[in-house]
Amino acid sequence: MTYCVGLNLEEGLILASDSRTNAGVDDIGRFGKMRVIAEDGERVIVTLSAGNLSVSQNALNLLEQRARHAPSQLGVHNAGSMFEVATLLGDAMREIRGRDAAYLKASGIDPGATFILGGQIRGEAPRLFLVYSEGNFIENSDETPFFQTGETKFGKPILDRVIDSGTSLVEATKCVVVSFDSTIRSNLSVGPPIDLLVYRRDSLRVQVQRRMGEDDPYYTTVRKQWNDSLRAAIAELPHPDWL
Amino acid sequence: MTYCVGLNLEEGLILASDSRTNAGVDDIGRFGKMRVIAEDGERVIVTLSAGNLSVSQNALNLLEQRARHAPSQLGVHNAGSMFEVATLLGDAMREIRGRDAAYLKASGIDPGATFILGGQIRGEAPRLFLVYSEGNFIENSDETPFFQTGETKFGKPILDRVIDSGTSLVEATKCVVVSFDSTIRSNLSVGPPIDLLVYRRDSLRVQVQRRMGEDDPYYTTVRKQWNDSLRAAIAELPHPDWL
Repeated sequence: MTYCVGLNLEEGLILASDSRTNAGVDDIGRFGKMRVIAEDGERVIVTLSAGNLSVSQNALNLLEQRARHAPSQLGVHNAGSMFEVATLLGDAMREIRGRDAAYLKASGIDPGATFILGGQIRGEAPRLFLVYSEGNFIENSDETPFFQTGETKFGKPILDRVIDSGTSLVEATKCVVVSFDSTIRSNLSVGPPIDLLVYRRDSLRVQVQRRMGEDDPYYTTVRKQWNDSLRAAIAELPHPDWL
Repeated sequence: MTYCVGLNLEEGLILASDSRTNAGVDDIGRFGKMRVIAEDGERVIVTLSAGNLSVSQNALNLLEQRARHAPSQLGVHNAGSMFEVATLLGDAMREIRGRDAAYLKASGIDPGATFILGGQIRGEAPRLFLVYSEGNFIENSDETPFFQTGETKFGKPILDRVIDSGTSLVEATKCVVVSFDSTIRSNLSVGPPIDLLVYRRDSLRVQVQRRMGEDDPYYTTVRKQWNDSLRAAIAELPHPDWL
């Protein structure tokens, strides 16, 4: 299983993913699901992938190979908008599915893969997209400042309560770490390390890209303090007078 | 959708359910999902139902009708153990599914229904069962003091963090209300009123059965205070020094 979340806030973007992959029948492995596919001072483009690993990896490989080998054509390296990038990513996934899906389905394997795509290209605001398994996609809005993929439910309540477009990158980062902690506690198939990327609006450079393992000091502190705070918050709730 | 939770703690049982039912294609209605099927000073038996409403209702109707019309036979009114009651409930559901499932499936309707069954019969400790759609069932253990059915994930992290067998009925009740609040906030198809029942071990009488609507004073207070506490707890987390 997988848990990925992307936030598009006034101050910038946060993207985060876990690293647990069931890459085969009995093979619980670790694969980073975050890829920075462009960062050149003119554009920062990042993907988080969930679902079938071969399909998501190869869709990205196709994009990167084309940007390298056919630089004069439209690609992630020269697209003028994140909308164009989302279109290219959806097309690449359709191409890979066209090649692989029948073979996967014949073995009962789901060829589905989804992407959270975030980034900024000079001349545009930062943008965040959710690219579905079928290659179509949606963009976030102010009322919907985040997208999740994979095992989304355990970590959603804290995001629903705290995050709006105006939340600062620092507060939202804390909230994302808590959201991962809640998910990891409740679903063994989501696990650390957590990959976290913070992008500040208009910087056109990744500000922080950090991998937090089980023993990462910040992750450990948040986990412990959050657990204590929740237990204290329950204790502080008034006793029902009817009990 | 539905959210039900049952807890079996050293001090007794807590059972709670929401009241939102999609009873037909376009008909979002309200139906209590909690039924006290016996309470006579010798036994307290309570069910929470999730899934197909006609199947779950009629399985219970069958049990109640038999207890009334064939009192000399084994029934919920004279069973010597909760294990026997769980068996009777599983059998009743199989009987209803035997009558209805083919017709439901022919219209693409899922005939699945699951029960959380809790109670105590004099001579036994309080017991808690999860009766699956197929009529088989499992019982909780000290390591697994609660069962959930329906839309379980949004409300699970807080239960995972706080509840163990030794948690008091008062603390656990607060936690259950919070678990419902988290679920209702994140999934519109789960909604109040919340039915809550508290049973104190060896009392053989229901201690509290309470329906909490949207405007219930305790539910309103918890909702507000919990939301404030969570936001404060996020604010109090240390800022990451790498951001």
